[in-house]
Amino acid sequence: MQYHLNGFTPGDPDISDPACRRQVLNGVNGLPEKVDVLIAGCGPAGLCLAAQLSSFPEISTIIVEPKSGPMEKGQADGINVRSMEMFQTFGFAEKVKRESVWINETTFWTPDPNTPEDIRRVGRVQDVQDGLSEMPHVLLNQARVHDMYLDVMRNSPSRLEPDYSLKVVDVVVDHLAKDYPVIVTLERTDTQRAGQKETLRARYVIGCDGARSIVRKSIGGELLGDAAHQAWGVMDVLAVTDFPDYRMKAFIQSSHDGNILLLPREGGFLARLYVELDPLDKAERVSDRGLDISDIIDRAKRILHPHTFDVKEVVWWSIYEVGHRLTTKFDDVPEEEVAIRSPRVFTAGDACHTHSPKAGQGMNVSMGDTFNLGWKLISVLMGRALPTLLHSYSAERWAAAKALVDYDHKWARVVSAPPDEASSMPLVQKKFIEGGRFTAGLTVKYERSSLIGGGTWQGLAKGYEIGARFHSAPVIRLADARPMQLGHVIEAGMRWTIFAFSPQDDTAILNLCDYLENDPQSPLRTFRRDGDDIDTLIDVRAVFQQGFRDLDFGSMPLLLRPTKGRYGLTDYEKVFCADLKGGNDIFDVRGIDRNRGCMVVVRPDQYISHILTLDAYDELAALFAGAFQPVHTG
Amino acid sequence: MQYHLNGFTPGDPDISDPACRRQVLNGVNGLPEKVDVLIAGCGPAGLCLAAQLSSFPEISTIIVEPKSGPMEKGQADGINVRSMEMFQTFGFAEKVKRESVWINETTFWTPDPNTPEDIRRVGRVQDVQDGLSEMPHVLLNQARVHDMYLDVMRNSPSRLEPDYSLKVVDVVVDHLAKDYPVIVTLERTDTQRAGQKETLRARYVIGCDGARSIVRKSIGGELLGDAAHQAWGVMDVLAVTDFPDYRMKAFIQSSHDGNILLLPREGGFLARLYVELDPLDKAERVSDRGLDISDIIDRAKRILHPHTFDVKEVVWWSIYEVGHRLTTKFDDVPEEEVAIRSPRVFTAGDACHTHSPKAGQGMNVSMGDTFNLGWKLISVLMGRALPTLLHSYSAERWAAAKALVDYDHKWARVVSAPPDEASSMPLVQKKFIEGGRFTAGLTVKYERSSLIGGGTWQGLAKGYEIGARFHSAPVIRLADARPMQLGHVIEAGMRWTIFAFSPQDDTAILNLCDYLENDPQSPLRTFRRDGDDIDTLIDVRAVFQQGFRDLDFGSMPLLLRPTKGRYGLTDYEKVFCADLKGGNDIFDVRGIDRNRGCMVVVRPDQYISHILTLDAYDELAALFAGAFQPVHTG
Repeated sequence: MQYHLNGFTPGDPDISDPACRRQVLNGVNGLPEKVDVLIAGCGPAGLCLAAQLSSFPEISTIIVEPKSGPMEKGQADGINVRSMEMFQTFGFAEKVKRESVWINETTFWTPDPNTPEDIRRVGRVQDVQDGLSEMPHVLLNQARVHDMYLDVMRNSPSRLEPDYSLKVVDVVVDHLAKDYPVIVTLERTDTQRAGQKETLRARYVIGCDGARSIVRKSIGGELLGDAAHQAWGVMDVLAVTDFPDYRMKAFIQSSHDGNILLLPREGGFLARLYVELDPLDKAERVSDRGLDISDIIDRAKRILHPHTFDVKEVVWWSIYEVGHRLTTKFDDVPEEEVAIRSPRVFTAGDACHTHSPKAGQGMNVSMGDTFNLGWKLISVLMGRALPTLLHSYSAERWAAAKALVDYDHKWARVVSAPPDEASSMPLVQKKFIEGGRFTAGLTVKYERSSLIGGGTWQGLAKGYEIGARFHSAPVIRLADARPMQLGHVIEAGMRWTIFAFSPQDDTAILNLCDYLENDPQSPLRTFRRDGDDIDTLIDVRAVFQQGFRDLDFGSMPLLLRPTKGRYGLTDYEKVFCADLKGGNDIFDVRGIDRNRGCMVVVRPDQYISHILTLDAYDELAALFAGAFQPVHTG
Repeated sequence: MQYHLNGFTPGDPDISDPACRRQVLNGVNGLPEKVDVLIAGCGPAGLCLAAQLSSFPEISTIIVEPKSGPMEKGQADGINVRSMEMFQTFGFAEKVKRESVWINETTFWTPDPNTPEDIRRVGRVQDVQDGLSEMPHVLLNQARVHDMYLDVMRNSPSRLEPDYSLKVVDVVVDHLAKDYPVIVTLERTDTQRAGQKETLRARYVIGCDGARSIVRKSIGGELLGDAAHQAWGVMDVLAVTDFPDYRMKAFIQSSHDGNILLLPREGGFLARLYVELDPLDKAERVSDRGLDISDIIDRAKRILHPHTFDVKEVVWWSIYEVGHRLTTKFDDVPEEEVAIRSPRVFTAGDACHTHSPKAGQGMNVSMGDTFNLGWKLISVLMGRALPTLLHSYSAERWAAAKALVDYDHKWARVVSAPPDEASSMPLVQKKFIEGGRFTAGLTVKYERSSLIGGGTWQGLAKGYEIGARFHSAPVIRLADARPMQLGHVIEAGMRWTIFAFSPQDDTAILNLCDYLENDPQSPLRTFRRDGDDIDTLIDVRAVFQQGFRDLDFGSMPLLLRPTKGRYGLTDYEKVFCADLKGGNDIFDVRGIDRNRGCMVVVRPDQYISHILTLDAYDELAALFAGAFQPVHTG
């Protein structure tokens, strides 16, 4: 991590200097009349967005939550590798790695053909394949994930804190207003002021207010879909059992009592069990059955037979019906009006898509929504991009949600399918292996658009798929010979990264740097503002094929050792070499063309925008022209 | 990390439930009349000790510091791999890894023979050899290391906070007192109460109060040694330079202007330079010269020629004379009285040994002192060990300090030696390579004693040296297939660990577990108290040669899947398998005898107490009999 650029300051480098400090609204102060952004809901989607915005004190943000304080026990707990990669950009991936349970192995149990009332293990699969990500698949109480975001917000220059006991009850867009067009009505939910209403105007409103989202309803959205007519129970327990895979993820199919998905949880003792209960009639609601925790425990005991299962403490439980639903659009602009106006109201997370929890995707996709939206909102509010950029949010994330709902639809049926004695490998294991990259969150691939280029030069970096996430790999930083992950240079915010991979002859890199630094058409010049460092908007990082002892930092082009900050200090962290020691050469593992090299252009949300030849100056300029607005029109 | 054993509690698992909460003394409350432990000084030695004690709320501890609050800018900054391994036991190694600068490469510069006024690079060495430790060598402002310990103390069940503005001015041991024999006189240093004196009685007093230690003087200790009669300047700066190795550790020798040791610092911009100034006359004090920061900068510029060096901000600087000094004993019991009484007063860190900063050892050795003392004090105060155990502190750490002073004596002269044109490799590079394990902190090896066994069975585990630190290696945890570092199961405190490495046939492990669990002579029985979990004092961990898919957790002996806590939950984290995937098989990399296996017995401070055959029950019992006191005599 880089700090002390503008002078030494003592203390924790994760705590920024405060830029301004707004009092928490539920205290003595009232609401402001106007804000740039109002976020409804302190779930993973809302907090992920607030954490991004909080780094920009120029943007005024309010995040409201009807509950009276932060969550203590969460329902979601699965964190896939893609979310862990995203956590890295916020700086708390290591903390989550330490505190969470890692899912390393998944096992499969079916009835014993000789004694069908007993289960036995029939398969085991490494949960995340080698090389899929530098991050593990982990589980952690959602409340702790919230805490991580709240820490980022608290330590940010904005010192952003949620306003609790405050609920969005209405959202209206005033299309005639010149600015702050969204009128938001809020209601107090604390006992003293319950029902008291307040109004404010916002530039943008984001509904992260769950499946019953008021924001969604206000913009005419509706969750459409179907249900599996199947009751499930879920519980977090401290229990004693002789089931040997209690600390692995386990799919357990019984002969007559349904199925269990067992997940170990953080801390070494806690476990979560999803337990299949009864099928429901078409018109029946799960609440009609009057089921409770004892039903879940009883059923779990029967399914786990012949193993003991003695519950000592129930931490949390719920009974629910599996459903898969999706709104038609994640913003307030109907398809036919996209050409004439830009969105002002958005929905994210459960507010626009719901699915069954057992694929472990809910929290991940919700955070993925607002990680997609965050940099776009920041870019627009900082005057760096035109508001039309915001259309891409619904376009990109609706497709991702649709793929998830479809997958989940199939997956829920696989999990509930009766065991198939004929097959040597249970169906659920087969489907689990097939879906590995999907459940890891790695199949999201954004379609071609002004932000995602075409595939002409895809062959120059076969391991980097245009539209998919930038897959990190080990490298050595030239200036200090530090072994590290290349992808970890990306931080949450609005900055794009150009990874320039050098051919054996580095002339193309020198030429590219010369163009980027000096050509009047260079996007580093056309979009740069007074006061910007050279890398404020676009960060250029070079990767060389040589070992770090074979290159001279001092002869790198100035763009790769730029001067920054009030002292004009040198940034030493722009140049990398292949790690030639451990069979980890990034040119090999990511299939980079060694003769031609290439540019891999990565968006602030870690998705690959384009792959280009090192001399594709015009294409590069055109790409950024689609994302940013030049300074003279700003 | 393990938590939720006695029921789910929300929030950060690093924050323990408070056991009791003493008010900070400098507020309205006065001092208590009696405490178990009084620590003088909030430097690395004092805080490392306080952090260990704070986990035991049964022990009352006060740590006092004459300064008015925590340090903001430190002088020490080097953290060797051994200290990083120790940080792991406190849970903050990952945090330090993220925030610090890593020293990966060290380079050597000497005058160019053709133009002797210019320097040129003549050598480079990987700073820490591969395989020496799982931890990197890092640098971080001492103040931040203090913050890490303060966090551990603050989050501990004791909620321990230092008492600032309070200075120890006298220490007297009342040999006639039955208990609390140490009478401590303290003086207030805050302006309002400056000079006000207070007295309290303590069971033990530890002087971590620096080179001018009052505690040391009170017990008649004196720092003896010599000086190199050489003035040095040191500065932390933000500067602009074209010296290409500015982010590596660099030894730079000029032809006529002396030498520089350059160290990059955390955050990517800051650097520390040790700059050789003038030799001093025998009787001369460095302060007589009237040197200041401009002298350091001027000299640095001359040495770095032909490279530019433009200082933008001086964060801290000092001018000092190199000295190497050591007291004769680190406690209050003269050699001739060792047999008749146990120590009550100790010194640690600079209070008992000083050396030049350039070997980067000061903070590390100071923390090493109190990491050695901490578990011994805890064991005695918790009634688990007899006070005679405390004699081993001075014995073990005096030898370690002596080795350091000797090394440092030679090293200071190597660094100040004029460049040798005749040799192809500079002397300093040769000595640096030779001293690699020493500067990494890995040559500390405690002598045979009641705590350190003899070498009869050393050959069973060639990679584990009796008396040296337990060298971690990768393993797979059986119950959840998690890849991890075996050494990371050790946590700061008073618990010993028996690592039982299994032969191919696991009968010896089964027999050992049977003995440990059931034999009346087993140390797990003789030293176990009511309310103890089976692993409160001695933690048994087994390591098998098979892959994790080839072993069944359910058929492990009960000792390796013990029930713990108020619910009798199973601890799943006692059994490990070799990591067969990456060429990391612990039996190979640590040279474990595959046919016989062995026990490696490790002390709470990570040092190897003994290596024994798996059936050496009597020797094992005898070893623990030397460390603990049985319950019936307690």
